[in-house]
Amino acid sequence: MYQGIIHRYKDYLPVTKDTPIITLKEGNTPLIPLTNLAEHLGIKAEWYVKFEGLNPTGSFKDRGMTMAISKAKEDGAKIVMCASTGNTSAAAAAYAAKANMKCVVLIPEGKIALGKLSQAMMHGAIVLQIKGNFDDALTLVRDITESHPITLVNSVNPYRIEGQKTGAFEIIEDLGDAPDYHFIPVGNAGNITAYWKGYKEFKDLCKSSRLPKMMGYQAAGSAPIVDGHPIKEPDTIATAIRIGNPASWKQAEAARDESKGIIDKISDDEITEAQKLLARFDGVFCEPASAASVAGVIKYHRENPIVNGEKVISILTGHGLKDPNRAIEISTTPTLVDSTKESILKQLKDFL
Amino acid sequence: MYQGIIHRYKDYLPVTKDTPIITLKEGNTPLIPLTNLAEHLGIKAEWYVKFEGLNPTGSFKDRGMTMAISKAKEDGAKIVMCASTGNTSAAAAAYAAKANMKCVVLIPEGKIALGKLSQAMMHGAIVLQIKGNFDDALTLVRDITESHPITLVNSVNPYRIEGQKTGAFEIIEDLGDAPDYHFIPVGNAGNITAYWKGYKEFKDLCKSSRLPKMMGYQAAGSAPIVDGHPIKEPDTIATAIRIGNPASWKQAEAARDESKGIIDKISDDEITEAQKLLARFDGVFCEPASAASVAGVIKYHRENPIVNGEKVISILTGHGLKDPNRAIEISTTPTLVDSTKESILKQLKDFL
Repeated sequence: MYQGIIHRYKDYLPVTKDTPIITLKEGNTPLIPLTNLAEHLGIKAEWYVKFEGLNPTGSFKDRGMTMAISKAKEDGAKIVMCASTGNTSAAAAAYAAKANMKCVVLIPEGKIALGKLSQAMMHGAIVLQIKGNFDDALTLVRDITESHPITLVNSVNPYRIEGQKTGAFEIIEDLGDAPDYHFIPVGNAGNITAYWKGYKEFKDLCKSSRLPKMMGYQAAGSAPIVDGHPIKEPDTIATAIRIGNPASWKQAEAARDESKGIIDKISDDEITEAQKLLARFDGVFCEPASAASVAGVIKYHRENPIVNGEKVISILTGHGLKDPNRAIEISTTPTLVDSTKESILKQLKDFL
Repeated sequence: MYQGIIHRYKDYLPVTKDTPIITLKEGNTPLIPLTNLAEHLGIKAEWYVKFEGLNPTGSFKDRGMTMAISKAKEDGAKIVMCASTGNTSAAAAAYAAKANMKCVVLIPEGKIALGKLSQAMMHGAIVLQIKGNFDDALTLVRDITESHPITLVNSVNPYRIEGQKTGAFEIIEDLGDAPDYHFIPVGNAGNITAYWKGYKEFKDLCKSSRLPKMMGYQAAGSAPIVDGHPIKEPDTIATAIRIGNPASWKQAEAARDESKGIIDKISDDEITEAQKLLARFDGVFCEPASAASVAGVIKYHRENPIVNGEKVISILTGHGLKDPNRAIEISTTPTLVDSTKESILKQLKDFL
């Protein structure tokens, strides 16, 4: 029986036999080949999405949270706290529930995706929406957890990165080696940091023969690393990467430089277009931020054609169900029809 | 690399080497132990949920749809059609997209969960909302697909049941044998039919030593099998099982009788309570209909205590993110606070 990422990768994680493993059976997410979209775009590479939306709370955050909460439990913590644009709060609330801990989440005002908010609340977290942005919320969480007996579980918690690196292990095991390119959305930059760490560790252990180019993508209205300075009021429809001053900024730049990759930005329109293409061509529905890793491939390939035989991974960080309102905004609405055969056939006349 | 349920179980499914496999890497869903909730309720059994919400479109429907769409593709179909309260439409739309087919979905008016609707639309289906209920929609789909070159992909499509039976195979492989009890929500009754078929097949193949009792649960306002007659206007907050005249009625009764199980009904309040308990005690967020299989255990255990050493499975058919509005309705709302340390600590004073 599958037992989650800590059990599977315990030899490579900072746990002992005494660590209580708090798991919801996260990880073990599939690689789905984008055969239709690749053909449509003329991309001849072997292109896969790693669908992290199939983690228990619907995002990649579960990988880090199983580690952070297990270690907090080992240390005797009773309360955990995080700042979050949504996905972290959902994961923290769920894993804290499983661990019998109280969870406090600070969310910025405005623009929180509906699905994510519903999760933190259902899992019984104390959800406080502050009059400020994500960066303000993170500053407050750091301040409060330093001075009170509360464990911080944001990605500055080092165990989060440790858990998240297991995504790279799974990719290497699935492909038999590291890919050529690893495309990934960049928000707080913890995930690009974690994947790069995972790829390097398995390379050092001779479990892979090479390292991928790390290709990070920020949203144009929220691209501090690309623009070279913090963004005071980050703005993008991709709420999960709407972060103006990433916690892992330097580590993301190191991943880029060491891997000879890039960190670039894409517009909200490109993100939306990629989200639609993915759903319509290959049947995969991701949240807007995730589509940045697909939009990145499309943009990069235009200028630097990816060649036959190369292996390309796009990380889909969260499920489309995290943000259903956004999906409905960008779709056509259902047609209301009479409950008769004739009225339905009339709607289908172009296809019969 | 995991390749989905058809590849994994092809020896037990009606496919040949010529069948084009249309997959989104469905299946392979985890069993999550409900240790906290079992302790809270005084249930001493080994109790697991099988979290089918971690299938690609967020529900168990993907297992049947990979089969139905693969066989439709093999037969040269260009258009598929279904009636759906939501989950079937999401799966049909996604798999049809992957197969380069047009998908037409008829949904009943009113009360469609937001997440599900967003999926059908994102995957490019033609979504027609009819002025009628699910049973009206299914009647229309049957009529139209009989007289036009359109493949019906509702659960009356026999390949759907074939795909869905793989859930039982996975449970047997994970536990090393069949469980004692299999609790499952009953709506259109295809899933209880499929699991029973799967359990019987693996027993016949000596891959398990026994059969579970099949424990089906309908919502009280939508309980035709329990009440003994079709329900004209079925009513429940569990939209995925709001069905008044189940397509697999007789097969569900056969599963119940052959396995010496039961089909019972539970109230919407019991469903809501179970959904909350599951999210708060064990960190798992399912859609309301899914919680029927947990509410079923709670109800049954009150009158027939489940004993130590017994193995109990509750099938969670869909993810909570399918119906975020419902989750928000039954939760407390976030508290809006000033962006200062003091105002936050004031909210936490009971916990520090």
